[in-house]
Amino acid sequence: MKEIVAFVRRHQVPASKKALEDAGFPALTIQSVEGRGKQGGIGGWAAEIDPELSKVKPYMDAPETRINWIPKRMLTLIIQDKEVEKVVKVLLEANQTGHMGDGKIFVCPVQDVIRVRTAETGEAAVI
Amino acid sequence: MKEIVAFVRRHQVPASKKALEDAGFPALTIQSVEGRGKQGGIGGWAAEIDPELSKVKPYMDAPETRINWIPKRMLTLIIQDKEVEKVVKVLLEANQTGHMGDGKIFVCPVQDVIRVRTAETGEAAVI
Amino acid sequence: MKEIVAFVRRHQVPASKKALEDAGFPALTIQSVEGRGKQGGIGGWAAEIDPELSKVKPYMDAPETRINWIPKRMLTLIIQDKEVEKVVKVLLEANQTGHMGDGKIFVCPVQDVIRVRTAETGEAAVI
Repeated sequence: MKEIVAFVRRHQVPASKKALEDAGFPALTIQSVEGRGKQGGIGGWAAEIDPELSKVKPYMDAPETRINWIPKRMLTLIIQDKEVEKVVKVLLEANQTGHMGDGKIFVCPVQDVIRVRTAETGEAAVI
Repeated sequence: MKEIVAFVRRHQVPASKKALEDAGFPALTIQSVEGRGKQGGIGGWAAEIDPELSKVKPYMDAPETRINWIPKRMLTLIIQDKEVEKVVKVLLEANQTGHMGDGKIFVCPVQDVIRVRTAETGEAAVI
Repeated sequence: MKEIVAFVRRHQVPASKKALEDAGFPALTIQSVEGRGKQGGIGGWAAEIDPELSKVKPYMDAPETRINWIPKRMLTLIIQDKEVEKVVKVLLEANQTGHMGDGKIFVCPVQDVIRVRTAETGEAAVI
């Protein structure tokens, strides 16, 4: 089993969710996080390359203001090993704009999953 | 070492916390998350099967409203390998109602733990 | 690749961020979490050992009040295997006060990383 953790733009959440559901992965968890990438946050020119950021008023008092923390959404889902390639493809298609800030996807090992309702474990508990 | 991640109903947090403490696991982290399971969210009939949801007003404007994201609490704790079975048992007992929405427990590998105060590492830093 | 997850005091975030950036690790994610350690929360004497807590009014109605959940910040970054020692050292230096509540650092395995913008994978996608 694997845990897929995807950091995506906030406005891409509905598209990501729909794409995952259409591909057979309705179960996921969402969290609000803040982050920054290798460019160390985005400057006041951010609104030009990402309209989403023009709405982030608290971070943009002046054109030259540096955005240190960018609001993101973190999607988490647990899948079977053989589904990793498919899920990554779905998330890439739903989130790739080609601009900085498209986010990242992490694939992490999971040793076991337990469904609380039935106490099922392993692959049977994944979905 | 293992990381135990449990997604539980919000109103089960106190019981989970008490059960873990009684079993010798007082240290844990809690986060607010939203999620949905394989049923893809819960419809307006939700209140009938889970009274907790009748309080989730913003999601339930009409009886037929579909709840897409259900508020959950995510509990995380780091334990030793030999403690996995015990902790899972404690969490199952505290959270199993037999109804949809009981949540899931994930067991993930952890390579190392460092206690910042003392710089201790490994098992010595777990608790 | 490894995921470094650090639970630190809220007021140590700027110092942690600066230290990581100076050491060549500008990319990270931050989340607000609540937690408690092996001492099971901190009592009303907390303000004496940690001035930060004197600001946590909702938890401290009376001197003898027990703080059950302490607000913390969770920093997450993905690094290469060979960078683990360096990053842990940077985080220890930025967060070690010697008092309870300094936090913990977890090192977790990551199987793969995908940069959404370019679809790069593996080490090339880490930074």
